[in-house]
Amino acid sequence: MADAPLFDTLTIIGPGLIGSSILRRARQTGTLARHLIAADCSPDVLKRVKELDIADEVTDSLTEAAAKSDAVILCIPTGAIRPVAEMILPHMKPGSLLSDVASVRSTLGPDIRALLPEGVSYVPAHPMAGTEYSGPDAGFATLFEDRWTLLVPPEGISPDAISMMENFWQRCGSRTRQMTDHYHDQVCAIVSHLPHLLAFTICDTADRLSTDLRSDVLEYAASGFRDFTRIAASDPIMWRDIFLTNKDTLLATFRRFEKEAHLMVEAIQNEDAEAITERIKRGRRIRQTLIENRQA
Amino acid sequence: MADAPLFDTLTIIGPGLIGSSILRRARQTGTLARHLIAADCSPDVLKRVKELDIADEVTDSLTEAAAKSDAVILCIPTGAIRPVAEMILPHMKPGSLLSDVASVRSTLGPDIRALLPEGVSYVPAHPMAGTEYSGPDAGFATLFEDRWTLLVPPEGISPDAISMMENFWQRCGSRTRQMTDHYHDQVCAIVSHLPHLLAFTICDTADRLSTDLRSDVLEYAASGFRDFTRIAASDPIMWRDIFLTNKDTLLATFRRFEKEAHLMVEAIQNEDAEAITERIKRGRRIRQTLIENRQA
Repeated sequence: MADAPLFDTLTIIGPGLIGSSILRRARQTGTLARHLIAADCSPDVLKRVKELDIADEVTDSLTEAAAKSDAVILCIPTGAIRPVAEMILPHMKPGSLLSDVASVRSTLGPDIRALLPEGVSYVPAHPMAGTEYSGPDAGFATLFEDRWTLLVPPEGISPDAISMMENFWQRCGSRTRQMTDHYHDQVCAIVSHLPHLLAFTICDTADRLSTDLRSDVLEYAASGFRDFTRIAASDPIMWRDIFLTNKDTLLATFRRFEKEAHLMVEAIQNEDAEAITERIKRGRRIRQTLIENRQA
Repeated sequence: MADAPLFDTLTIIGPGLIGSSILRRARQTGTLARHLIAADCSPDVLKRVKELDIADEVTDSLTEAAAKSDAVILCIPTGAIRPVAEMILPHMKPGSLLSDVASVRSTLGPDIRALLPEGVSYVPAHPMAGTEYSGPDAGFATLFEDRWTLLVPPEGISPDAISMMENFWQRCGSRTRQMTDHYHDQVCAIVSHLPHLLAFTICDTADRLSTDLRSDVLEYAASGFRDFTRIAASDPIMWRDIFLTNKDTLLATFRRFEKEAHLMVEAIQNEDAEAITERIKRGRRIRQTLIENRQA
């Protein structure tokens, strides 16, 4: 027999790429929730969710949706999580669960735990999945399959609530692991935030070239540059918020990167063939381990 | 009727990824040359070429191969082109053609033109194609299809010789264009060399992390980082030579990039949300143009 739904009523606030993928998964499997609400303040988004028929109910009242729900997942830009949580939490039922999918934690955990009404739990989780597209049309039910979802519950949250969310993400197809906010942000600074900062910057540098050179650069974009432009195609508001929220860790990671980049530039400047080769080989070692881990 | 072969005897010096792809293409189409010679100083490479049966003849004598050929293409690391050209050119027949596939030009063009015996032409070309693999097993006949091959003949080379090489690369499936060495190197610094420098460096930075963090970074490698590791997987010797040969243009391009990176870091440091978004959006603009150009 199929698993009974984990929740009775589930609200997704912000049915974009991540949110609409959860809704599609819930619809397709029937094991996440019996009744699905999509809440958003944009009428266009709600209209589109209706047309796509991926929720049982759509509403622009976040508080009303929250009041009816056993679980609410905030799938909105990082910078909006705190104010929206503050607005909806007083309306949430005892025994219900708040989550978000923010890709940077910073002090979100303790900040939101401090706002929790009696009996409401907060178990945020970061699904490490995505594409460069956004909006309700961009989602798909298999987005989280075989991807990591990192659970980052603040201290003092009930183990039962944590297990529920772990189960939720496993039913979405994810592998799950639990870690602290700080460690999460360190890992993400190097696997995701710094690569994006560099990709945005190299594309920006190309955009500022003289007109002729810019157009030829685009014409002859070889794989290296093309890969960067794909990374750089991601949503600007989301990434602005990520950079701001993970500011300290990201800038510290950038400085480590910059130090290494200067050592490489110096080796090239001094025509130190051995040092250049050594640095290139270290990069390849990482690739090798990724291949061994079947992540490449 | 099929086209007659362009050349009678063609020698590929260095049957690696690029060289063995030319050989496979020549074998498959029959329109590039009647007789194919693979020359290399490594017995292992020659043995493998024989096993793969992608040449009519293999030899470790580069000068003997050159003496018999109507065209010789050097598919060897950039740094080896000048000495090998110097060694084989005195043996080449009048009316024959020397080429190479170096991805950086620097002063190769005028340097080698100065060494040309009477009646021998030099028409180098850079096929903008490749994978992260190398060696005779890595090649395939369609590697150059729909990719640009940039012809960079030095001044004073006969138009007939240039047409021959243009025809050659078009028969390999490439789109071709002719440009100066200097312009070529500027374009490649940004579309290829700087992306590789950054990719090697970010992978190197990751490799230097503490053991725990390094292993988790690898475990959770999201798409951004994974893309960088793919770029960073390329051949160290080839890239060392590219960096050294295009030193001045690459370092100038790096400095432009670094200036932009600092402006982004400063915007994050100052929490200047508008400046961050503006910079991210510029990067996306480049991606949009690539999509319009059908290069994405």
